[in-house]
Amino acid sequence: MAKIVIALGGNALGNTPAEQLELVRETAKPIVDLIQDGNEVVIAHGNGPQVGMINLGMSAAAEAKAIKSDMPFPECGAMSQGYIGYHLQNAIGNELVSRSIKKEVATVVTQVLVDENDKAFQNPTKPVGSFYDKETAERIAKEKGFVMVEDAGRGYRRVVPSPKPIDVIESTAVKELIRGGCVVITVGGGGIPVIRKNGLLYGTPAVIDKDFASEKLAEIIDADLLVILTAVPKVAINYRRPDEKWLSSMTVEEAEKLSAEGQFAPGSMLPKVQAAVMFAKSKKGRKCIITSLDKAKEALAGETGTVVSL
Amino acid sequence: MAKIVIALGGNALGNTPAEQLELVRETAKPIVDLIQDGNEVVIAHGNGPQVGMINLGMSAAAEAKAIKSDMPFPECGAMSQGYIGYHLQNAIGNELVSRSIKKEVATVVTQVLVDENDKAFQNPTKPVGSFYDKETAERIAKEKGFVMVEDAGRGYRRVVPSPKPIDVIESTAVKELIRGGCVVITVGGGGIPVIRKNGLLYGTPAVIDKDFASEKLAEIIDADLLVILTAVPKVAINYRRPDEKWLSSMTVEEAEKLSAEGQFAPGSMLPKVQAAVMFAKSKKGRKCIITSLDKAKEALAGETGTVVSL
Repeated sequence: MAKIVIALGGNALGNTPAEQLELVRETAKPIVDLIQDGNEVVIAHGNGPQVGMINLGMSAAAEAKAIKSDMPFPECGAMSQGYIGYHLQNAIGNELVSRSIKKEVATVVTQVLVDENDKAFQNPTKPVGSFYDKETAERIAKEKGFVMVEDAGRGYRRVVPSPKPIDVIESTAVKELIRGGCVVITVGGGGIPVIRKNGLLYGTPAVIDKDFASEKLAEIIDADLLVILTAVPKVAINYRRPDEKWLSSMTVEEAEKLSAEGQFAPGSMLPKVQAAVMFAKSKKGRKCIITSLDKAKEALAGETGTVVSL
Repeated sequence: MAKIVIALGGNALGNTPAEQLELVRETAKPIVDLIQDGNEVVIAHGNGPQVGMINLGMSAAAEAKAIKSDMPFPECGAMSQGYIGYHLQNAIGNELVSRSIKKEVATVVTQVLVDENDKAFQNPTKPVGSFYDKETAERIAKEKGFVMVEDAGRGYRRVVPSPKPIDVIESTAVKELIRGGCVVITVGGGGIPVIRKNGLLYGTPAVIDKDFASEKLAEIIDADLLVILTAVPKVAINYRRPDEKWLSSMTVEEAEKLSAEGQFAPGSMLPKVQAAVMFAKSKKGRKCIITSLDKAKEALAGETGTVVSL
């Protein structure tokens, strides 16, 4: 039996509520497999497509005067946690019931602390929301103080910073729920980003990488294992080239060397490998498995996946 | 020291994110007064204006093709729990910090069970979303299976049922968090309504009265006291008439008699008095106070408010 944090990608949850409701039923099965095997399971998840849709929808409605005001980005994140958390807890709960496992699933709305001096705030890189023409982009930038950049010839788009997570505000709640035998869903979308000023927390428009947030959470709750889910069952080097090679394991040293060589795509496999390295380094005995959702059970049995350890 | 469920009105939270962020700071103070006095506090809240805004915004954006799909009503409720919960937990957390009280605040995304045979499903009464002209209303009714009714000469509007809550699905999580010393925010907007079929839970478009949901929660977690907040410090009979009389207390018997006489406005004070009666009747020693937020501390000290007890 292990304490496991599973980091689930937001892309795996589809693009509409109907799609998501369908997909979470499938997602629930391998997760419940791990619970059935006696593990304590905490689920973290991305929210890229979902927070995008919410942000886009509320902005469009506000522009059209259908509603009084736009929804700020941290609040859109909070809404996505409610939306995705509800679907996940419902689906996992139903899967548990259908296997006669008596366990409750609960989503904790979660704030994640970032440092206002994080260099990311000087260099916002994460595009969010609609594409605009130059003139509209300049007007919005002026009106709302957004940073707008030209995005690969497709128009102008808002960018927000992607600072590193430094603490999970509701970590005691997560620990108490684990202790009470609950399956917990937390740090949705990497968490609602907050900065601390004079001891008080304030929401800030940013996107925290969900793999880094999951790693931070796994450290804080003293997890044994971090499972980072992705589209492929293993990490590859020379990915999609003739000499492609799938890895069953990497030491921290190997992973750092391969990362430095540019083997892993930034914004895709690289943050996963970096999060894996951070977790494996954080305490003796901790390890990370990078694999796909459908292979999670086999990966835990050592049959597939890429294990990152000291 | 008592275990207290506070039922907060959604109308007290303003109509825009900026308003809400401002108002929750004020809301946090009397709530933290009760925590500082050593009480275990659980907060339930309404979501009328907020879920209305979310539902309206996402529908308008979907109609305008700004986003791919409309957001179903239970999902809008889940989003409102994330949105309001985040603001409340942030504000209460900050107020605790500023008083040097070490306590965590966590919002639990909460499903509330209703009975699919509840008569409310045959007679939907709660208007939600936009006003439409007759033709558009008929088209939407046909397309989406919504029930649309003419609303006081202002146009046609969707109505959803308001069934009674029969269980709080995440009640173990709430109990574990209380046991762990956390301040809990739950059953937001009366909870995400779910029905049970063959043991499995399915979201259903409905609005659960937040006072009834708070009452159900208070029973389940064995609270000592239910505090129902409203716009006035006490319950009145002959309200706004020359012989208006403010009540300091009501027995269950008196409250039932006054309710039957039509003293309390349906959809306003009546459900609060009904919830109070239900809670006071549920177990010896349990009582309910109906008062306003700013008077909560005084009401607990017996200086104001209307106490309903056996």
